[in-house]
Amino acid sequence: MNRTLLDTPGVDTLAVIGVGLIGGSLARALREAGQVRRIVGCGRGRENLERAVELGVIDSFTHDVAEAVREADLVFVAVPLGAMRGVFEAMRGALRPDAVVTDGGSAKASVIEDFRAACPEHLSRFVPGHPIAGTEHNGVEASFATLYRNRRVILTPQADTDPDALARVTALWRACGAEVVEMAVARHDQVLAATSHLPHMLAFGLVDSLARMDEHDDIFRFAAGGFRDFTRIASSNPVMWRDICIANRQALAGMMRRFAEEMTDLAHSIEQADGEHLLAIFERAKTARDAYIDGLEAGAEADPAE
Amino acid sequence: MNRTLLDTPGVDTLAVIGVGLIGGSLARALREAGQVRRIVGCGRGRENLERAVELGVIDSFTHDVAEAVREADLVFVAVPLGAMRGVFEAMRGALRPDAVVTDGGSAKASVIEDFRAACPEHLSRFVPGHPIAGTEHNGVEASFATLYRNRRVILTPQADTDPDALARVTALWRACGAEVVEMAVARHDQVLAATSHLPHMLAFGLVDSLARMDEHDDIFRFAAGGFRDFTRIASSNPVMWRDICIANRQALAGMMRRFAEEMTDLAHSIEQADGEHLLAIFERAKTARDAYIDGLEAGAEADPAE
Repeated sequence: MNRTLLDTPGVDTLAVIGVGLIGGSLARALREAGQVRRIVGCGRGRENLERAVELGVIDSFTHDVAEAVREADLVFVAVPLGAMRGVFEAMRGALRPDAVVTDGGSAKASVIEDFRAACPEHLSRFVPGHPIAGTEHNGVEASFATLYRNRRVILTPQADTDPDALARVTALWRACGAEVVEMAVARHDQVLAATSHLPHMLAFGLVDSLARMDEHDDIFRFAAGGFRDFTRIASSNPVMWRDICIANRQALAGMMRRFAEEMTDLAHSIEQADGEHLLAIFERAKTARDAYIDGLEAGAEADPAE
Repeated sequence: MNRTLLDTPGVDTLAVIGVGLIGGSLARALREAGQVRRIVGCGRGRENLERAVELGVIDSFTHDVAEAVREADLVFVAVPLGAMRGVFEAMRGALRPDAVVTDGGSAKASVIEDFRAACPEHLSRFVPGHPIAGTEHNGVEASFATLYRNRRVILTPQADTDPDALARVTALWRACGAEVVEMAVARHDQVLAATSHLPHMLAFGLVDSLARMDEHDDIFRFAAGGFRDFTRIASSNPVMWRDICIANRQALAGMMRRFAEEMTDLAHSIEQADGEHLLAIFERAKTARDAYIDGLEAGAEADPAE
């Protein structure tokens, strides 16, 4: 892993399947870094793809996955997890033998299973990946070249992953300013269930349950500033999140049940007015959260552009 | 309620008990609006009070509640809910007969009970209040004059509240740029449990449970941007929140149990890969949250300074 960008070749033809926030931002970042000659976009929405060409994010587009990947030496798949399988099936037989395929899916076991089922003969050239970055906005309009700068990208290579394919994908993300980390698949899915999928469930669940209350007008009317931040992630794309829940259902459901039990215990402590126990929980949480923010800020200082 | 600021007298001597974010910001706002002649601060921490004088937030200070309120025509109590009772007991007998007392507590039934027990003879001059504003920071350093501008302040007067006292407190908050709303006590406590207390429990509970996991270093290391916003309120003051939980325990514990059941149901839908049900929940939540934000933004447009 001591390669530098200098001895790693850039990309000749990049195929981006799904030109939204994630795919569009990778295209922009690689373009800006001078790491790619030509970018072909592929998706279902004509308007979004036309806009992507206008914005210079991609050079051309097609709605046909096989056509999009045919000349690509690198393929990036950034579609909702539920659409991965269909995309992989559509590229089977059309991929160049040397093409490297990677993805941006938020759960990794399901994507690997999908790829193995659809393109078994290409499996060693598939590098499962997950950039830990995003906003609650969608579409190519929301994409920007610095989305991945100083962000972490987790790669979950398998025992049979081609080291050259892994090195190419690593170099790609580094060129976007990201820090690349390798992790076991199961661990990735567990960590992401905890830090991202569970919080999304809490935010979606909270806003939905408030919206269903009789006095929901008052409820939202009197929500304070903290509520705005707390619920921001409830504005995320419902289809994407349906797919993440289903793809990572095992890790996520277990974590949600554990959290529900903790909330029930906490409710009990509150009913008992057990101030000592409540204070211990809140203090531990505040300490952990303040330390997390200090860590983020220390990281941000390294790059004044951030 | 058709009084204007013009025919409402300002405050001669304001006593602020608890000169932190909430108390300090009221003092600053009234001072800036030219609505007060003299401000006496009262609290336990000498350093914070000295800083408050240096910053011009208060004119003088004492650690003695009785001394602080003795000459005050208006008393604002902004201490954690668990300290209210002691403060009210300390002011008994020292209050001017015409003094109006109000507070900024986040739960109202408990404060009213505390005041009734401590100062029964002054009850008609007590106007329970709750400004829906705040940040996760504490102390007078964190206070600022515009904290309440375009924010809502809920007052929960009782049947025997003196209309003049209510009018004075209403005028006070309006002078700070706030919108004043009257609400029944039980409804206030229910609405706040839903929009503020429950979200804080979810954020504290989430961060605490992640911090207690074996792989907590990784957990926080790979937390994305959404996590930062979602957990911001977990950096709030633990003592303040312990007191809020206990003061509003009935409304809050019920809501937490209901939420825990909903999370368990949602976990079940996820395990069953019930995509249709998940999508319905996430879409309803996104719609409600987007509408809430649109409402906020429409409100903000009314005041370009916001």
